[in-house]
Amino acid sequence: MKRIPLSTLILTAIVIVLAAGLIGTLFFLRSQPPPQRGFTPLVEVAPMEPDSSVWGVNYPNQYSTFLLTAQNDTQTKYGGSKLISKLEQDPRLLTLFAGMAFSKEYNEDRGHMLSLQDVQETARVNETTPGTCYSCKSSSNPRLWAEMGPEAFYETKFFDLGNRVTTPIGCANCHEANTMRLIVTNPALQQALEAQGKDWQTATRQEMRSLVCANCHVEYYFKGEGKHLTFPWSNGTGIEDIVTYYAEIGFADWKYPDAGTPMVKIQHPEYEMYTADSTHFRAGVACADCHMPYTRDGAAKFSTHDVKSPLLRAETACGACHTDVTYVTDRVKRIQDQVHETLIATEDAIIAAINAIKAAAADPNADTTVLDEARALHREAQLRWDFVAAENSMGFHNPAEALRILARATDQARQAQLKAIQASPQALLARAQP
Amino acid sequence: MKRIPLSTLILTAIVIVLAAGLIGTLFFLRSQPPPQRGFTPLVEVAPMEPDSSVWGVNYPNQYSTFLLTAQNDTQTKYGGSKLISKLEQDPRLLTLFAGMAFSKEYNEDRGHMLSLQDVQETARVNETTPGTCYSCKSSSNPRLWAEMGPEAFYETKFFDLGNRVTTPIGCANCHEANTMRLIVTNPALQQALEAQGKDWQTATRQEMRSLVCANCHVEYYFKGEGKHLTFPWSNGTGIEDIVTYYAEIGFADWKYPDAGTPMVKIQHPEYEMYTADSTHFRAGVACADCHMPYTRDGAAKFSTHDVKSPLLRAETACGACHTDVTYVTDRVKRIQDQVHETLIATEDAIIAAINAIKAAAADPNADTTVLDEARALHREAQLRWDFVAAENSMGFHNPAEALRILARATDQARQAQLKAIQASPQALLARAQP
Repeated sequence: MKRIPLSTLILTAIVIVLAAGLIGTLFFLRSQPPPQRGFTPLVEVAPMEPDSSVWGVNYPNQYSTFLLTAQNDTQTKYGGSKLISKLEQDPRLLTLFAGMAFSKEYNEDRGHMLSLQDVQETARVNETTPGTCYSCKSSSNPRLWAEMGPEAFYETKFFDLGNRVTTPIGCANCHEANTMRLIVTNPALQQALEAQGKDWQTATRQEMRSLVCANCHVEYYFKGEGKHLTFPWSNGTGIEDIVTYYAEIGFADWKYPDAGTPMVKIQHPEYEMYTADSTHFRAGVACADCHMPYTRDGAAKFSTHDVKSPLLRAETACGACHTDVTYVTDRVKRIQDQVHETLIATEDAIIAAINAIKAAAADPNADTTVLDEARALHREAQLRWDFVAAENSMGFHNPAEALRILARATDQARQAQLKAIQASPQALLARAQP
Repeated sequence: MKRIPLSTLILTAIVIVLAAGLIGTLFFLRSQPPPQRGFTPLVEVAPMEPDSSVWGVNYPNQYSTFLLTAQNDTQTKYGGSKLISKLEQDPRLLTLFAGMAFSKEYNEDRGHMLSLQDVQETARVNETTPGTCYSCKSSSNPRLWAEMGPEAFYETKFFDLGNRVTTPIGCANCHEANTMRLIVTNPALQQALEAQGKDWQTATRQEMRSLVCANCHVEYYFKGEGKHLTFPWSNGTGIEDIVTYYAEIGFADWKYPDAGTPMVKIQHPEYEMYTADSTHFRAGVACADCHMPYTRDGAAKFSTHDVKSPLLRAETACGACHTDVTYVTDRVKRIQDQVHETLIATEDAIIAAINAIKAAAADPNADTTVLDEARALHREAQLRWDFVAAENSMGFHNPAEALRILARATDQARQAQLKAIQASPQALLARAQP
């Protein structure tokens, strides 16, 4: 038997020990669970699952904060989630919306969890209301749109659709099941982006943290007999683009009683106002950064889903970027006061225009060409005013833009009043107040 | 002889060495020059020395940058230091200032070093012009005010005062000689602060870095026969305070030709606009922080005295606080565009009001009570517009406030037009354009 030198034996032993150690380490690493962001999912969630509590098993922090939107009964100076009547707060709205549903009831919007209850209890719906009105109110919708197709959804009457729409706004309105990816779920948003040549699938996560809000927090209208939910964005999302859009298609939500003006009611164009080059938007801040700030619960850090005004938790919401929270909230209040003062002046100007146009319209000898010019100015003035008034931030989402729009609206309202007087001297005698 | 122990000798030697060292150190320290901020003064400057070059011996960096204000021929989109005619840029001003000197000549203001030349060459002065017009144009003034008294200065005719006013704006307008303390030198500012119960001697240095600018960059008028330079601040420095002030004293700079409106020309209310709760002011930023940013020349760091638009050196001016200079200058440009668009609309509204009032005033059957209401609205609208138009920042010193004021001005101008029509149907036929 050939003798093996001691040095070779030692070297071999070292190699074996190292190899065993390496293999052991690899096996150990392989046996570890894959890396997870946040919690490990406990249940598989069905695609477009309407029931947010199922998603909540996997994401208890997000879900439990989301539930708080049902209890939220808070109020800020110009907003909040308390059920209060805007018509009582500012009776000018009764005149501005005369002849349409918003003069019957116009309440402060409440939290996401109450969206279904609020739309079902509003005095603004009746037996002719289309199913389209459910579009932004329920996490049942994504699956219904997939099953029925959006067109059938819109064309079904509101009261007939009610038994299939059973959940308030929830996880499925913004998230893809299991991956939790932020997604566009509203077909109207999908179509509006396509009309502008935009593909949301290429958006960054930070862009999606604003874009999912545009599933609902936008201006829209019901297009044609099919009451097809449509965003007026094909020219762009700025106020001038939207004014042009409605002018081009000759759309009207209602005709103003006795004045005869074809009117447009603006909904809640938070996304359009914010993205119109606002300072926060340009700085890369998403809606969720302020309205769903990162929150800590024990060791967990997550985006709160108790979506509400940043003013109600400024330390968390503003304090994430701004060191002096008192300073910045004082700025918000100052700007909102300035916008509110200007907004009320615009309302007074529009009401004066309405009364003048009504008086001229009642005069059989009025110059109808000039009267129509007055109506066109009234329509535009009120559309612009409503773009600021219906937008839930009292201008803070974009201060200079809000004030620019209101200045223009006031000017147009006064010019409408002047045109009415030019059409008929009767308009000179019209009251300036409601 | 008694023997001294060795230990005592050693101890005594140590004490002597330590004491000598201490005394030596104290003598060395005493022989050092006292601590200086910046340069050691080389010459003693006489109190209120008008000649800035004398001060410049001690402060060569500040002085050499100050001299650059004579060469500055730069232009921004809405301002700068280039000698251009505002009347050519915007011919609406010819109508707005009809019947007064600003329709003869209204040029962009130039640098501090050119202040004397510009006031002596302007077409706006004539043999009736009071010496008051020199108040903000020369570093000769502090000594002249001390020697003559401000009243005699104001009452001397401009052309007669000229041989005593020999230097442009300079060191003595803001600094105390030798201490270089920032001081109020304009008696009108002293009086305006006193009228509000304010004592500038208690102001912090940072407050003084804005307050010395108020020696000139403010709204003022010439009070009474003595043409006493006066700031309309006794109610406060906000636009509403100033409107009330001029209403209470029934002041008018001129009567608008053919319309008969008693008008007020607003000067350059940069200090009032900026301190009306603007975001930069509330954040503790002084005028000098942006307009005279810290600059380095070799090893020396000093406030540049080449006072000009921060847009012309945004890296230094904005970059001292803001990390993304392109982002913030884009914000400035966006805001200025929004304000400019709104400003032009206000001008159109005022011109329409002027033409309507002129038409009504020409009607012998016009209702004079209502016509006076129209004039009162015209006066206020134009005063508000001019508060933004004459303020050198195209609204950026206080964006929301500028837009709020313009919205109100437009509303008042259109109401003036309506009142004129109410006073006489002739006003309906008036042209809307200049």
